Amino acid sequence: MELEQKPLAGIIGGIGPYAGLDFVHNIFNNTIALSDQEHIGALLISCPALIPDRTKYLLGEETVNPALGLFESAKILYAGGARYVVVACNTAHAGRIFKPFCEMVHNALPEMCIINMLETCAEFVKKNMPHIKKIGYLATRGTYKSRLYHEYFTETDGFDLMEPELQGKNHINDAIYSPDFGIKAYTNPVRVKARSILLYEGFRLIDRGAAALILGCTELALAITPSDFSIPVIDPSVITARELIRRVDATKLATLTINPKVEKE
Amino acid sequence: MELEQKPLAGIIGGIGPYAGLDFVHNIFNNTIALSDQEHIGALLISCPALIPDRTKYLLGEETVNPALGLFESAKILYAGGARYVVVACNTAHAGRIFKPFCEMVHNALPEMCIINMLETCAEFVKKNMPHIKKIGYLATRGTYKSRLYHEYFTETDGFDLMEPELQGKNHINDAIYSPDFGIKAYTNPVRVKARSILLYEGFRLIDRGAAALILGCTELALAITPSDFSIPVIDPSVITARELIRRVDATKLATLTINPKVEKE
Repeated sequence: MELEQKPLAGIIGGIGPYAGLDFVHNIFNNTIALSDQEHIGALLISCPALIPDRTKYLLGEETVNPALGLFESAKILYAGGARYVVVACNTAHAGRIFKPFCEMVHNALPEMCIINMLETCAEFVKKNMPHIKKIGYLATRGTYKSRLYHEYFTETDGFDLMEPELQGKNHINDAIYSPDFGIKAYTNPVRVKARSILLYEGFRLIDRGAAALILGCTELALAITPSDFSIPVIDPSVITARELIRRVDATKLATLTINPKVEKE
Repeated sequence: MELEQKPLAGIIGGIGPYAGLDFVHNIFNNTIALSDQEHIGALLISCPALIPDRTKYLLGEETVNPALGLFESAKILYAGGARYVVVACNTAHAGRIFKPFCEMVHNALPEMCIINMLETCAEFVKKNMPHIKKIGYLATRGTYKSRLYHEYFTETDGFDLMEPELQGKNHINDAIYSPDFGIKAYTNPVRVKARSILLYEGFRLIDRGAAALILGCTELALAITPSDFSIPVIDPSVITARELIRRVDATKLATLTINPKVEKE
């Protein structure tokens, strides 16, 4: 057996910690492997104390830009040899955080390629689900406020993004963040209250005409699954995990067997 | 918010990949945290292509010592700043692998402290479950052959380790390794056949008088749980995850709420 090694996939986790693990889980689940040795190499950094809350920053309740902590995490991944890196948090992709982060990486760690989760997801939908235009998405208040999804799922491309009403958005944020019942505080198991809020807001969007739902926050897949809904459910974490495998070793990419069902990727 | 950081916990995963994730999951599950930022810092390397199979090596079916790949993984964790490190694989703790690995780390990465999962687990049982002496354990053929558990759960300490019969051992090994139904090939979900073998061999050990069961392979917790059995089930991965938290930041260690129930840790 040769001790040879392809490039390492890097995952900036910790935002939140369980969502980072879920991302790596998605990598393993989408890899063709019958033995340990057939899996691709991955390096996960979960250093949340360095990264202030993204939503709080975008809402002006936190002054330190999370980009700094993301960059500290990127440096650790770089030192370990990771070259294709994803930030396992949707809200962190908001321009005010993601752009300075990418600039710091570009200047200091030039060999590192950051894979943009939102861009990857939008490309996937355009290519594989061209008939789906009216898309509902569940997200944090930070993601809604920054209109992050509108940057990638553009009107120019024919997308019609649907959001919950204000009260619904606040409920979703509580389902993620509440110290009493939120997913970040209670992941194992997730509290029924958090899950019901997310299901209800998902069903409301479907009722209003959504043809697909996007889990626009990496915590959401810890509470709800594609099988909860009758329409395609798109998890950017799964789509991007697949893109990481493709970059590191495309021969290892398993067929997409989970939702959304697509004819050919 | 200060960008301060305690030492990083390091996890050598990939052996197998899902077991490495399960180890990190155990860290998060045993941490007191209501928000992302309260979790401890962790770095997981999952680079299985570098680490030949441990059981095959111990049985003489593989010539390259997995210690070399473990050391490559340790160097990556070291470069990332991890100082307390665990090898998330029981079989890798066999002397023929673990001793040269520890020597290489000691010589090249002197600031790195390797936490021995078997030693930690044996100390835990001695301290917290002093009345339990007759212990059945489920493991790989490599672990049985190396008599690894006998090094730590010694007769001198009054332990009476119970193993399945030869056929049972082979069945357990198949439940872990078989490319047709083993946990390493099918984790999500685990195949019923793998789970039933492990349950059956666990029940047989209980029938023969075991007062506790040890999940002596990090893959096993992916298929069976303490709630499957009527006696205490000890998962060295959980015990060692708790020890890592204690080393990195003891104030974050949650009460042990899972099996084995102990009065005071």
